[in-house]
Amino acid sequence: MKQEKHKFMEEAIKLSIENIKNGGGPFAAVIVKDGKVIAKAGNSVTKTNDPTAHAEVNTIRLAAKALNTFDLSGCEIYTSCEPCPMCLGAIYWARLDKIYYGNTKTDAKNIGFDDSFIYDEIATPIADRKIKTIQMDRDKAIKAFELWQASDDKIEY
Amino acid sequence: MKQEKHKFMEEAIKLSIENIKNGGGPFAAVIVKDGKVIAKAGNSVTKTNDPTAHAEVNTIRLAAKALNTFDLSGCEIYTSCEPCPMCLGAIYWARLDKIYYGNTKTDAKNIGFDDSFIYDEIATPIADRKIKTIQMDRDKAIKAFELWQASDDKIEY
Repeated sequence: MKQEKHKFMEEAIKLSIENIKNGGGPFAAVIVKDGKVIAKAGNSVTKTNDPTAHAEVNTIRLAAKALNTFDLSGCEIYTSCEPCPMCLGAIYWARLDKIYYGNTKTDAKNIGFDDSFIYDEIATPIADRKIKTIQMDRDKAIKAFELWQASDDKIEY
Repeated sequence: MKQEKHKFMEEAIKLSIENIKNGGGPFAAVIVKDGKVIAKAGNSVTKTNDPTAHAEVNTIRLAAKALNTFDLSGCEIYTSCEPCPMCLGAIYWARLDKIYYGNTKTDAKNIGFDDSFIYDEIATPIADRKIKTIQMDRDKAIKAFELWQASDDKIEY
């Protein structure tokens, strides 16, 4: 019998192929909890004009909706490609337990996607990045953080 | 006369403070094109049960909707805090021209947010990360990329 995890990965891969035919990018992901698929989605950046609509982000949003929580502890993600920094960040914020991936960021680079470039940019000191990044008005911005810390009814996450 | 960029940053900071009062996290962002605010939003993770609903992601999604494109070249983002890796990734994918930020990731860490931890994780080799990350079935996953490359009607981005 085929191991369950290969079954879930195949579901993600199958969707990544269908997604091309449906006008999306060649990426898809599946989120599993207790051995059951609770959400799956392909990349829909160009279809929905949403630069954040990568497969993993879309799938996390669907899973969070399905479970009615922003905390996806206990869930695993199967993604057809190694997550880009945006999606990896989303996975950490969502507190997924485990990541299974198929293609690598180098495979993605080889077909024209910027994953690898963005990883390089994150590893570059802020002052040397391609997108100019400037700190300002921290003395004013910090007031929101002070207010947050002093607040009794905040929901931490 | 106050420089325009301080005016936009103040708008982001003001919204980050209001956002706490409205039950959100202490973060907000504003996207500007041709000297005009085209989108602004606060963090709504706990309010909308969406772990991806950081201020920058929310604002990028709104701006992309407003301009009806996934390519936000020509736009600048003013964010009350240094973007986390998810948001920085989103900013790169959206091709924003410039980033202005107030608080730092260390300020965010000091009030209990994981930004800094996630930056550290990204800099850690995959095998040593806290969220176990496993490659599998690349021989099958690569077929979607091959199909993508062979496709004539793909929309590249």
